Amino acid sequence: MSILVVGSVAFDSVETPFGKAEEVLGGSATYFSTSASYFTDVKLVAVVGEDFPDEHIDKLKGHGVDVGGLKKVPGKTFRWKGRYDYDLNQAHTLDTQLNVFSAFNPEVPAAYRDSPFVFLANIDPELQMKVLEQVKTPKLIACDTMNFWIGGKPDALKSLLKKVDLFVINEGEARELAGEASLVKAARVIMGFGPRILIVKRGEYGALMFSDNSVFSAPAYPLENIFDPTGAGDSFAGGLMGYLANTGDLSEENIRKAIIFGSVMASFNVEAFSLERLSSLRLEEIRARYSEFKRLTHFEDI
Amino acid sequence: MSILVVGSVAFDSVETPFGKAEEVLGGSATYFSTSASYFTDVKLVAVVGEDFPDEHIDKLKGHGVDVGGLKKVPGKTFRWKGRYDYDLNQAHTLDTQLNVFSAFNPEVPAAYRDSPFVFLANIDPELQMKVLEQVKTPKLIACDTMNFWIGGKPDALKSLLKKVDLFVINEGEARELAGEASLVKAARVIMGFGPRILIVKRGEYGALMFSDNSVFSAPAYPLENIFDPTGAGDSFAGGLMGYLANTGDLSEENIRKAIIFGSVMASFNVEAFSLERLSSLRLEEIRARYSEFKRLTHFEDI
Repeated sequence: MSILVVGSVAFDSVETPFGKAEEVLGGSATYFSTSASYFTDVKLVAVVGEDFPDEHIDKLKGHGVDVGGLKKVPGKTFRWKGRYDYDLNQAHTLDTQLNVFSAFNPEVPAAYRDSPFVFLANIDPELQMKVLEQVKTPKLIACDTMNFWIGGKPDALKSLLKKVDLFVINEGEARELAGEASLVKAARVIMGFGPRILIVKRGEYGALMFSDNSVFSAPAYPLENIFDPTGAGDSFAGGLMGYLANTGDLSEENIRKAIIFGSVMASFNVEAFSLERLSSLRLEEIRARYSEFKRLTHFEDI
Repeated sequence: MSILVVGSVAFDSVETPFGKAEEVLGGSATYFSTSASYFTDVKLVAVVGEDFPDEHIDKLKGHGVDVGGLKKVPGKTFRWKGRYDYDLNQAHTLDTQLNVFSAFNPEVPAAYRDSPFVFLANIDPELQMKVLEQVKTPKLIACDTMNFWIGGKPDALKSLLKKVDLFVINEGEARELAGEASLVKAARVIMGFGPRILIVKRGEYGALMFSDNSVFSAPAYPLENIFDPTGAGDSFAGGLMGYLANTGDLSEENIRKAIIFGSVMASFNVEAFSLERLSSLRLEEIRARYSEFKRLTHFEDI
């Protein structure tokens, strides 16, 4: 089954303790699409400026991403500049230039409207809602957000969450949204807003999934070098949603497997700047790392 | 098989967002012994002052702990006062009164010297070494430490580590000891100092075990309320060492199980102040929570 993703396509400038990259391809929808493309068909809705080179679009096409919903409009592409220190869990934003993104009004092409899987990457929750108004009863609606919207548009976010099945959020943001220091309590509060599945991303500590009756703890892959964490969350979401769409199975057991595939994709992504590593994977590498996650967490029953 | 433990027995005064406790029973060796007592015989070497009530000693005896090496000497018992804020991973020390502990010179009773398992809880590494000089070729030597000794007596600590098989340390302290921001690299540096098994404690994020050929990631139990984190690390070590001593099996697979038992004991310990919860467990509760850890981490192979 296919996935519709709406989010940003951007130029990123990133500094880490291991090097720097200037105006490289980035954006939540870019990372998501590339990651998910290893598992299923992806239809992309986003906006770029006239400065966006065709070679980047070709790269997405090369991954089988349907770019019919990627609009090129007058003006400059969205730019983000950030720095990571040794605590690679924390991005320090140095500069944000919304450019063409500031007038982004997502239009879902007719051919995309019956997508069974929808991922609303981190954008204004009012725009996320506009996307949902254009799609026909998807099998699964998932979304991400960030502290900027939790603080700035909490009501719009809560209205959106009523319609969302699966919500992916960072740990600190989960606490902020719920107003609860205890993550377990925060999870219950957030699930009260609507989503029946909540996935809390914890950076180098992995992820926790909360569902009706159970909690699942997934580790992160212990990498020797995390080169650039940019896009880790969106690569994670891409692997997760990609595997779910590929299998069409929304059982608890299958969502657990999907979370591991998400963790696998995130672990590859952070091994290099931009999409360098994420865009050049072989399926055997993905499967091999999945097995490494199995070995990483295995212990015997008593 | 039995375990010899050397460490502190203390009075703790603790404030958390959930309440406070004044001069309650604490100390690394107390938490360790109580936790390990559910699995095996424990022989305790420590020192207390004349103000230490017999009822506390009776409590340890009630758990089958051999207190023949617990000396009562003139003066006052070691006291620690600390506070935890909402970030329960971080203890803020308000006051430390070493009292009789400042002259502690651990003497291992003759009957303890052939203990096959030895745990050196967090004390001066020179004293930890003195303990090792008194024991006969144990099957497994394990130790803990803290940032105070990493900064204050790094050479003594490194000399000790040459003789240690299994080293338990907090995440931040591992990075500090190795001088490495990457935890995977830090682990390799520390194992170069001697220990063939390194267990890195990450508080509410669980633990990582590094051994020759593999890494094991254990989650922490997602508790709704962490009431008081004091003693979590020593309860963890107690469950870990207790299970290893009970089974006498030092295979990689068995150490993984032991780490889960350690995590189980730590999860119970933080549910109440002092040893309230840890000292009143039933074996069925321990086994049931082990099974919950299994469910918490389970995902299917591809």
